[in-house]
Amino acid sequence: MSPDEFRRRGHEVIEWIASYMERVADFPVQSRSQPGALRNALPEQPPMYGEPFDAVMNDLDSLIVPGLTHWQSPNFFGYFPANSSGPAILGELLSAGLGVQGMLWSTSPACTELETHMMDWVARMLELPQKFHPNNGGGGVIQDTASSATLCALLAARERVTAKHESGDDPASNLVAYCSNQAHSSIEKAVRIAGIGENNLRMIDVDDTYAMRPDLLEQAIARDRHAGNVPFFVCATIGTTSSNAFDPLPAIGQVAASDEHIWLHVDAAMSGTAAVCPEFRHIHNGLALADSYCFNPHKWMLTNFDCDCFFVADTLNLTKSLSILPEYLRNKATESGAVIDYRDWQIPLGRRFRALKLWMVIRHYGVHGIQQHVRHSVSLAKEFAEWVKADPRFELVIQPELNLVCFCLRIGDDATRQLLNAANASGKVFLTHTVLRDRFVLRMAIGATMTEHHHVKRCWSLLQELA
Amino acid sequence: MSPDEFRRRGHEVIEWIASYMERVADFPVQSRSQPGALRNALPEQPPMYGEPFDAVMNDLDSLIVPGLTHWQSPNFFGYFPANSSGPAILGELLSAGLGVQGMLWSTSPACTELETHMMDWVARMLELPQKFHPNNGGGGVIQDTASSATLCALLAARERVTAKHESGDDPASNLVAYCSNQAHSSIEKAVRIAGIGENNLRMIDVDDTYAMRPDLLEQAIARDRHAGNVPFFVCATIGTTSSNAFDPLPAIGQVAASDEHIWLHVDAAMSGTAAVCPEFRHIHNGLALADSYCFNPHKWMLTNFDCDCFFVADTLNLTKSLSILPEYLRNKATESGAVIDYRDWQIPLGRRFRALKLWMVIRHYGVHGIQQHVRHSVSLAKEFAEWVKADPRFELVIQPELNLVCFCLRIGDDATRQLLNAANASGKVFLTHTVLRDRFVLRMAIGATMTEHHHVKRCWSLLQELA
Repeated sequence: MSPDEFRRRGHEVIEWIASYMERVADFPVQSRSQPGALRNALPEQPPMYGEPFDAVMNDLDSLIVPGLTHWQSPNFFGYFPANSSGPAILGELLSAGLGVQGMLWSTSPACTELETHMMDWVARMLELPQKFHPNNGGGGVIQDTASSATLCALLAARERVTAKHESGDDPASNLVAYCSNQAHSSIEKAVRIAGIGENNLRMIDVDDTYAMRPDLLEQAIARDRHAGNVPFFVCATIGTTSSNAFDPLPAIGQVAASDEHIWLHVDAAMSGTAAVCPEFRHIHNGLALADSYCFNPHKWMLTNFDCDCFFVADTLNLTKSLSILPEYLRNKATESGAVIDYRDWQIPLGRRFRALKLWMVIRHYGVHGIQQHVRHSVSLAKEFAEWVKADPRFELVIQPELNLVCFCLRIGDDATRQLLNAANASGKVFLTHTVLRDRFVLRMAIGATMTEHHHVKRCWSLLQELA
Repeated sequence: MSPDEFRRRGHEVIEWIASYMERVADFPVQSRSQPGALRNALPEQPPMYGEPFDAVMNDLDSLIVPGLTHWQSPNFFGYFPANSSGPAILGELLSAGLGVQGMLWSTSPACTELETHMMDWVARMLELPQKFHPNNGGGGVIQDTASSATLCALLAARERVTAKHESGDDPASNLVAYCSNQAHSSIEKAVRIAGIGENNLRMIDVDDTYAMRPDLLEQAIARDRHAGNVPFFVCATIGTTSSNAFDPLPAIGQVAASDEHIWLHVDAAMSGTAAVCPEFRHIHNGLALADSYCFNPHKWMLTNFDCDCFFVADTLNLTKSLSILPEYLRNKATESGAVIDYRDWQIPLGRRFRALKLWMVIRHYGVHGIQQHVRHSVSLAKEFAEWVKADPRFELVIQPELNLVCFCLRIGDDATRQLLNAANASGKVFLTHTVLRDRFVLRMAIGATMTEHHHVKRCWSLLQELA
């Protein structure tokens, strides 16, 4: 495709997306597509010769869009906010247009340095502990997701206890990791991937707020030590997926600090963004006790997926576990030791220029704009919770701390499940569910980029009607 | 950013990229930036209030572009081709604009189904063995990189031999993996990550063409069995990074088939694309003996990074090792068993709509267009190799099979190294190096989207001049 044709088609695609943004509130939020519908509509064989661009764009409208659940709809309240925004989309576009590789500093210095700098900006915005700053031996890196960040944290933790990267024969088979029974499934996945085995992950029970009980953590660690196991990794969650619970970091940090082998990772994927507001920054109390931390700008910070910010206090064990330097990647800058090669901070080798979208988001909105977005979501969630409380048919299961409301119908699980199905089937809204203490509970996650008061209000009216 | 502002700014960014495409050949290919240059030019603090979009675009030109090594330059011959193209960029743009999540089928059916379908198309284009097709229990998935695909293959292989996802205590510590000493660093990285330990990776010596010696592989496996170890994973490479060597798949496949525990993974990240041309399809001879396979459309198939196509013959062990279903992800479609949930086929949970760009590329260029791109690169490489052979000062180290030429100066390593430095310092071209049998060798990787005959010719003239 020539630059001129790219120019012409590019303008068409921009128009298409702008128009999508204008129309997205009117689409049924959840796709009504049946399994196989799209597959059956597509030709079995790839085209032998190139097709007109218009044909592709027509199929986008007629075949692809009906098969989408519209995560960017202001009526999307499922799972978690998956913020996209104009500047983020354009940052992603620029990154694709430039098409550079950031695996080494030397393969595009600006790609690495903008990333390091954005991690600094983010650390300042969230007032993260100084230990994560490069000047103190720490550092930050963009990962695709919190799953990968958690895996990297686990590998660094393992590296600190064993020389596991060299040998599978050392006494690593009795390593034990800990998280709450509300922690994200990625902890279990990481434990599996690393070959530690899910039997060696202890899922600690929680208190009434679904936060990890530090006393039970302490007991579990003591039991393991007594049994000759090696406790080495604790993951605390700041904002669980199910119910947005906050594990008590100060107490958990103290337990972890009792053993030099234990690495404390803090997973704030969903809620970390809130710390951009001084009034919510308390969610990070105790973070200075952590060895690593991550949160996802691609959830609630107006930045397109994928963009997870991962910080470590001591980068040495991370790079020790992941660094391999084959001849064909050797270069003067790496050998000088004066630069960061982010390939040693992640699972894959190659990497996109993801810092660009973060840079464009922070500059376009400013800290203040991001604060407004967070405050807006939280105030909508609190208002929604009040509505739930005021309707005797509903029960507010958890008073929202931030932007997730968990609630159900008092008459029981079946009715709540039917309500969910009816609401989603209407196409007007989309919510998801969880189970808390054996009860089926609806989750109303507020924070989509375009969600306004009237969208939340309309959702509540619909739920009242259907109830 | 309102849809209208997005429209306006979007058109500007499209113009900027089109103009970048027009100008990129004139930029110094390798960035001349010094460590810290960009960091020092950026403000320490993030902006409190949003800035004008123009300010960001100005900084893009003045601060970011000088810090880039231009991977999309037609004069870029380093590392490997990192193909970008108009339709791929627009596919990435649409994916960002739609902002959907493809972790489950139900979170956007079209995202999953288009991916499955594109993997079918790709399998047809490359004439991959039928065993990788869903109808035969196999399947394909898009991974970010071949590194991640290899890690997934290793985990599936481990799952087949042990119940490792459950327990770290089983006799897994004597698992042993094999690859050639020319294999990609990601194999070693995967072995480390999985906790198998790099001491349990045997790097098999190669023949004169730098291809793995099956006889030595066989001996190493026998030695390990004799020692009570459990050989479980062999990775063969189709097109090594260093010198584009091809491990002999039929013979390696036979060795691997001698033991039901051994999983054969084929890493064709760099060269697999060539199989789109019938005359190069022989590089996959013996692939029917493999358990898994991957190649990177983001290298040589006109598709933006990241896009690795990963196929497995039996998806069961892959999903067994990676599947976790927490309550908040439960849904009817998953429970029906009629759909694919790609989150169980990869390391992270979340996933972008990457199939969109592959769809746009295949439809825009057609199979024929992609064949032309491959043939063009290969013929340029062969011509370049003839030029090298005809100049008595140069030695052609390897006769290129496809699009990588390895060569050096006869008078020795120092001169070759100086030649590389001088060529790259000129800004007119960019090449990288490797070491083959202790000799410092230049690598000329041909296949950038915009590389034409005159770019290659000019590169050769420059090298002759500098020699």
